Amino acid sequence: MIETPYLLFLGDAPDQLAVKVAQGIKDWRPDNAVGQLRMEGCKADVGLTDMTLAQAKEAGAKTLVIGVANRGGTISAAWRAVLVEALEAGFDLASGLHNLLRNEPELVSVAQKNGCKLHDVRIPSVQYPIASGVKRSGKRVLAVGTDCSVGKMYTALALDAAMQERGMKSSFRATGQTGILITGEGVPLDAVVADFMAGSIEYLTPPNDDDHWDVIEGQGSLFHVSYSGVTLALIHGGQPDALILCHEPTRKTMRGLPDYELPTLEAVRDVALTLARVSNPNCQVVGISINTQHMTKDEAEVYLAEIEERFGLPAVDPFRQGAARLAEALARL
Amino acid sequence: MIETPYLLFLGDAPDQLAVKVAQGIKDWRPDNAVGQLRMEGCKADVGLTDMTLAQAKEAGAKTLVIGVANRGGTISAAWRAVLVEALEAGFDLASGLHNLLRNEPELVSVAQKNGCKLHDVRIPSVQYPIASGVKRSGKRVLAVGTDCSVGKMYTALALDAAMQERGMKSSFRATGQTGILITGEGVPLDAVVADFMAGSIEYLTPPNDDDHWDVIEGQGSLFHVSYSGVTLALIHGGQPDALILCHEPTRKTMRGLPDYELPTLEAVRDVALTLARVSNPNCQVVGISINTQHMTKDEAEVYLAEIEERFGLPAVDPFRQGAARLAEALARL
Repeated sequence: MIETPYLLFLGDAPDQLAVKVAQGIKDWRPDNAVGQLRMEGCKADVGLTDMTLAQAKEAGAKTLVIGVANRGGTISAAWRAVLVEALEAGFDLASGLHNLLRNEPELVSVAQKNGCKLHDVRIPSVQYPIASGVKRSGKRVLAVGTDCSVGKMYTALALDAAMQERGMKSSFRATGQTGILITGEGVPLDAVVADFMAGSIEYLTPPNDDDHWDVIEGQGSLFHVSYSGVTLALIHGGQPDALILCHEPTRKTMRGLPDYELPTLEAVRDVALTLARVSNPNCQVVGISINTQHMTKDEAEVYLAEIEERFGLPAVDPFRQGAARLAEALARL
Repeated sequence: MIETPYLLFLGDAPDQLAVKVAQGIKDWRPDNAVGQLRMEGCKADVGLTDMTLAQAKEAGAKTLVIGVANRGGTISAAWRAVLVEALEAGFDLASGLHNLLRNEPELVSVAQKNGCKLHDVRIPSVQYPIASGVKRSGKRVLAVGTDCSVGKMYTALALDAAMQERGMKSSFRATGQTGILITGEGVPLDAVVADFMAGSIEYLTPPNDDDHWDVIEGQGSLFHVSYSGVTLALIHGGQPDALILCHEPTRKTMRGLPDYELPTLEAVRDVALTLARVSNPNCQVVGISINTQHMTKDEAEVYLAEIEERFGLPAVDPFRQGAARLAEALARL
């Protein structure tokens, strides 16, 4: 477990997208963060108080969380000085980067000297089983997307919050580093060895009360050729009773794949349902989550109405509207 | 590279299925094996001369290949004595087991003392890239199955042999430990970290002559909930121009999943083609490979004729008939 509260390290982030991790913590567990630490040239801001290490220590922060992603997931030389200083001030460090804190000899040595912990949430800490496919009690809902980074984690977190507000039993189940840093537990699915991917999701969403919902964070897309295998392992390991389709309507090509156009929501619905019904024959698509951040309010409303009619399902932007209507659709199931 | 020729270690195999690795080497690269080594109680036989370590050494064998799989992929105590003896006699060891030779302190120490190598082909030896999805020159064919262990590797090896016989340019591309032990190279896909699965297949099947075919060994099944993610990574990383459907018609439930019935060939064709066309819009199913080992010759002929009519595609059992008609279908493409 990572000790809270955090100080969020934004480093020298070139833009707001690079601090997705910090933004997620600020949005979903604001009580877990006392402030943000920005270096000179930082172009991002998650809206927390700017603090020095000393000020954050004074405010009770226990862990410096690296809330920024570098290209390639590396720990840059510019950051290292700050991280060493944090360890010397008695902070633990937590990171979801590909390059691991534990592989940086200087950080390891200073951490040891000061009795501080290095948390690499990017790395599985469990030996997951091979998936058995055995039907589990309890209910599960999974966010599946037309592309990567269309708002699947946001949708799952908003849905979990809306379900709790209705008095439903639900647990957000993190499958990526941001979600793990937010909730303190989960499966870093993209770092799991191929054979154990589906098994890790069975492990993450064990048998539960019949009226309990696991709200599983999605990853990748069945149509994203770099990561589609991860998505299918989520579908088959998760045995979802319900799928939420996630989409960003202004995106022209798949993230990181300039030669690939986005699939239609219909294409995603059809192939995702076909595959989901292998592990859960009763699986249904219950709603659609649209990321309208690049549309005006009016454009978004027109688009959402059109999608509702086209699919006969509730379509919402959980950021603008909350996920109450998606929670309602699950309650009806 | 693993030094040939081999002595094939069958250990105390409980049945013939357990020596799939040794059988594959014997069937496809018989010149690579001088004989087989069986312990007391061994219930398997791949039809090579039984030899002691000394006899095999005399016959020129360089490497003892563990050609048998234990439940759970472990190296049993009963085997260890033989393996130590082999190292003391100067053999290298090669293994595709989950449990690694390099993690057995006694084997490591004896190997060092005798200057012998321990090859764990189960473990990737390369840092694979994330898949780029960029279209590559050359052609690729992939075997996809209704289930695990229905004959996908056999089909790919037979197809490669038939294509070479026709004078076509082809390379068998191994994606599992048996295939790697047979050809001496390949990607141990089930041991690759999730994010790099599709990229490892791009790496395995690089740009090539326009008339060259990579014949990619399949893994798992889109309908096998434990391993389906691996299969989808093969489809998207491989960018196949052609698919061969593989099936074992007498099997009632999915391998290792007693609650799951096999999908129809039609279901596999439809979902595999839909997904394959994401990375290669021209992909086609060109033929069907049926494993008729549990049918009589007459039953097999009736079944194959029925399948040919149902799908309008060549349907063969490559073990009984060779894969010439599948190679012909590729040549026509």
